[in-house]
Amino acid sequence: MRCTRTIFSSIPAFQILPATTRCSSSISPRIVVRKAHYQITKMSVANASYNTDTGAEFNFQDAKLSQKFGPEVTNYFSGSPLNRVSFLRDKPPFLSAALPQAKYLLLNSALDPLSASPKRLAYASYEDVKPLIGNPYDVSEEEFINSYDSRLAQPPQLIFLGIDEYDKESGFVYGAEGSASRYEGRAYFAVGVEDWVPTGIEGEWRKTRLNLNLARSDAAILAQARSIMDWNNRNKFCSACGSPTISVNAGTKRVCPPYDKALQKSADATPAERPPCISRKGVHNIAFPRTDPTVIMAIVNSTGDKVLLGRQRRWPEHFYSCLAGFCEPAESVEEAVRRETWEESGVRVGRVVVHSSQPWPYPNSLMLGCVGEALPDGEQIHLGHDPELHQAEWFPISFIREMLKRPAAGLDEGTPEGFQEGDIRLPPATAIASQLLVAITNNYHGGLKI
Amino acid sequence: MRCTRTIFSSIPAFQILPATTRCSSSISPRIVVRKAHYQITKMSVANASYNTDTGAEFNFQDAKLSQKFGPEVTNYFSGSPLNRVSFLRDKPPFLSAALPQAKYLLLNSALDPLSASPKRLAYASYEDVKPLIGNPYDVSEEEFINSYDSRLAQPPQLIFLGIDEYDKESGFVYGAEGSASRYEGRAYFAVGVEDWVPTGIEGEWRKTRLNLNLARSDAAILAQARSIMDWNNRNKFCSACGSPTISVNAGTKRVCPPYDKALQKSADATPAERPPCISRKGVHNIAFPRTDPTVIMAIVNSTGDKVLLGRQRRWPEHFYSCLAGFCEPAESVEEAVRRETWEESGVRVGRVVVHSSQPWPYPNSLMLGCVGEALPDGEQIHLGHDPELHQAEWFPISFIREMLKRPAAGLDEGTPEGFQEGDIRLPPATAIASQLLVAITNNYHGGLKI
Repeated sequence: MRCTRTIFSSIPAFQILPATTRCSSSISPRIVVRKAHYQITKMSVANASYNTDTGAEFNFQDAKLSQKFGPEVTNYFSGSPLNRVSFLRDKPPFLSAALPQAKYLLLNSALDPLSASPKRLAYASYEDVKPLIGNPYDVSEEEFINSYDSRLAQPPQLIFLGIDEYDKESGFVYGAEGSASRYEGRAYFAVGVEDWVPTGIEGEWRKTRLNLNLARSDAAILAQARSIMDWNNRNKFCSACGSPTISVNAGTKRVCPPYDKALQKSADATPAERPPCISRKGVHNIAFPRTDPTVIMAIVNSTGDKVLLGRQRRWPEHFYSCLAGFCEPAESVEEAVRRETWEESGVRVGRVVVHSSQPWPYPNSLMLGCVGEALPDGEQIHLGHDPELHQAEWFPISFIREMLKRPAAGLDEGTPEGFQEGDIRLPPATAIASQLLVAITNNYHGGLKI
Repeated sequence: MRCTRTIFSSIPAFQILPATTRCSSSISPRIVVRKAHYQITKMSVANASYNTDTGAEFNFQDAKLSQKFGPEVTNYFSGSPLNRVSFLRDKPPFLSAALPQAKYLLLNSALDPLSASPKRLAYASYEDVKPLIGNPYDVSEEEFINSYDSRLAQPPQLIFLGIDEYDKESGFVYGAEGSASRYEGRAYFAVGVEDWVPTGIEGEWRKTRLNLNLARSDAAILAQARSIMDWNNRNKFCSACGSPTISVNAGTKRVCPPYDKALQKSADATPAERPPCISRKGVHNIAFPRTDPTVIMAIVNSTGDKVLLGRQRRWPEHFYSCLAGFCEPAESVEEAVRRETWEESGVRVGRVVVHSSQPWPYPNSLMLGCVGEALPDGEQIHLGHDPELHQAEWFPISFIREMLKRPAAGLDEGTPEGFQEGDIRLPPATAIASQLLVAITNNYHGGLKI
C-alpha cells in the first residue's frame, strides 16, 4: 500500500492533460486515429534512425515482430532525438570538447524549463551559460573527487544528455576519422540554474506537468533532463552514511568522496579521510539515478467483451482511466498487475501481456503498460481492500471504442465539446492509458497517434 | 555508461547458476522442456490462485491472451505464494495480531537466509524471535515517529512480507466474518538479525546467489525479503538532508522524523524539531523501496534466422548469453533495449517486444525480458563504443535450438556433461536469458520449465 503515492497528482495513469481531438479513420473504422501535431523526421539510435529520409513513422511496421505483435507504440515522453552515448559520460576530454557548440536546457529551482513557447523549449548557448558553469571538465574525475572540500559550494548541476547526430551544423566531432567509434552532432546538456537569471536568452519558465503540448522531441529531452536533475536534487546526501555526495559522470552518478580538504591539517598534509562509508567499496545502486517501475493495465474480462476502469474521488465527473500502481521489490511486472488490480478493485487477473512503456518524469517513473485478462471466477468488484478508488466498473469494449472517438480532455480541464449524456471521459492520447484502450479495441495492436 | 554495474557479478543476465538438465519434449520437438523439480500447487493473489486443486501450471494457457501471445512464463524468483496485502502494512492492529502465528525468515548481516537445506529456507516461530523483536506494533506509527530519539538504537529490521492464504493451520484471521475484506492464513515476516544468534532453530546461513536450487516458492519469498532488507540497510540516512531515517509501514517505508527527543530540553518541554527536510512535506520516492528496471534482450536479425549473443572476458570458455543493461531515467523499455544493444554491440534495433519479467534480488533489479529485431542495415557488430563485451556474435537460431537441448551449467561451474566440440554454453532455465532464447526458437511463445 502506498496510497499517498498513487493519488492522481502522482500517477501518470491519470495525467493532467491538455485537450486533444480525435476523429475516426476513413481507412479502417476499427482504428481510431488522430491528426499528428508534430511529424518526427529523425530519431536517435535508441529509435534506430529508421526512415529518416522519408520522415515515415517510427513504429517499425515492416518488422517481422510487428506482423505478429503489431507495430510499436512510441508513447509521449519517449522518442528522444538524442543518442545518449552513455559510455562517454566519464570522459572529460569528450565532455570538454562538446561544451562550446552544445545546446543547454535550463531548469530553475522548481525544475521548470526555460521555454520558447508552449510547444518548444528554449535552448541556451555555451556563451549564455559560461558565466555560470565555466568548464567543469578541465580536471579528471579522480582529481575532482579527491579534492572535495566541504567548505565550498558544489558547482551548478550540469547533466550531459546526449548528441543529436542529425544536427551537423555544430561541427562537433569526437573520435578518429574513419573510425566506427567516431561521434558527431550537437551535444545537449541540462543545467540546474537555481536562482541564476540568464541574460540574452528569450523565454519563460513554464510549468510542464499541466502542459503536454510540448513537441515530442522536446518532451523527451525535457523528461530526461528533469528526471536526472530531480534525482540529483533529492540525493545530495549519502543514504548509506549521511555525508554530502558530489556529482560525477556528467550528472549521472553521485559519489560519497573519501577525503575532505576541510579536515586536512595543512595544505601539504596527507589527505584527510571522511568517516567510512560502505558506498565507497564495490558498486551500489544508490550511486545511480533511480527509476521507479510502475504498472498500468487495461484488464479485460474472460469473455473478452468488457474492460475494467476506475475513477478517483477527486476526478472530474464521468472521468475514468486504467488502474495503476507501483511495482514492488521482487515482483514481476505480471505479478504487480495482478496484485494492484486485486487490491484496488477485488478483481483477480490471470494472463498479463506488456503492450508498451512510457517514461513519466514526475519525478522518475517508468510506466509499464499492460493488458490483463480476468479469471472467469474473479470478476467481482470489491473496493474494500485498498480504499484508493472511488469507483471501478466493467465497461463494454464496444462502448469504449465509441468513447475513444470523442474529443478527450485532461483532468484539469472542463468537459470537452461533444460530450453527451451517457458518455464517459477518457484520458487523451498522450497518456499510455489511452493507448492501452485503443489496443484492446483493436486486437491488442497499435495505439492512437499522439 | 555504467560498466562497473554491468559486470557479470551484478547483472542477472549472466547468473551464476547451478547445473540443470534438459531433454527434448516428446510431444513437440520444437519446444524444449525440462523436468520440474518442484510442483507449484498454490499461488498467491498475484498469481491468481488458479487451478489450485489440480496443481496445474500457472501459465494461464486457457486465457484468450495466451492464444494470441502464448502462455505466461513465470520466471525464477517470481511466483510467490504470499499475498502482500500491502494496504495492511500501516495497520498496527493487524500487524500485532499477525505476529504470534507468523513464520519468520531470518537474514544475517550478509543478508544470507537461515536455511534448512539447499532447497528449503528455515523459518522461525514467534517464540524463537520474540526475545529479539518483542512487539514493535504496540504503538501507532505516529507515536513511533514522533518519539524518535537519536540516542537510542533502532529496533531490529522487521519486514511484513504477506499472508499465505492456503495455510489455514495458523488460525490467523483478520476482519469481520462474512466480509469480503477478511484476510486469513499464515503471515510471513523477515527479520534482520545482524549478529544475534537464534537458539532452538535448526539451520545454517547459506549464500544464495550461488545457489538457485531453492524451491520456487522459497526463492520468491527470499527475493522479497532480501530486496527490501537491502534497501533498508542502504538507506539508514535521508538522501535529502543527511539525517538518520527510521523504518515504518512494516519495513516498506523510511521516514525522516521531524522531532528528536535528544534535542529536547526537558521531558515535558515542547517536542524539539530536527533541521528542516524537504522529504517531510509531500510524497517522495526516496521514502519507498527502490527497484531498478533492467533490460535483457534476445535480438534477432531482420531475416529472422539468427540471434545476437555476447560474452564477457571473465566468463568460462564458450559461455554466451543475451545482452543486458540498466534502463535509464526517461527511457522507454524499448529505447533502453535499442541503446544498450547499440552501445555494447553496434547493432541497431527496430521493433522491440516485452516477453516476460524476472525479479533479481541482488540487490533490487527487475529484469524486463525482451525480443528485438535488428534493422536490415544495422546488423554490423562493433564492440568499440562501450567496451563491456569481449565478444558479440550472430548465431543461427537452428543452432541455438540444438544448444538448448544440451545440459546447462552456471557461470561458476565447470563445462557440463555432454558438451561437444563446436558447442556453446548457454545459461540455465532459472535465467530469463534462457527463457528468451526458448521463445525465439518457438515463435516467441513460452519458455523452459524451471
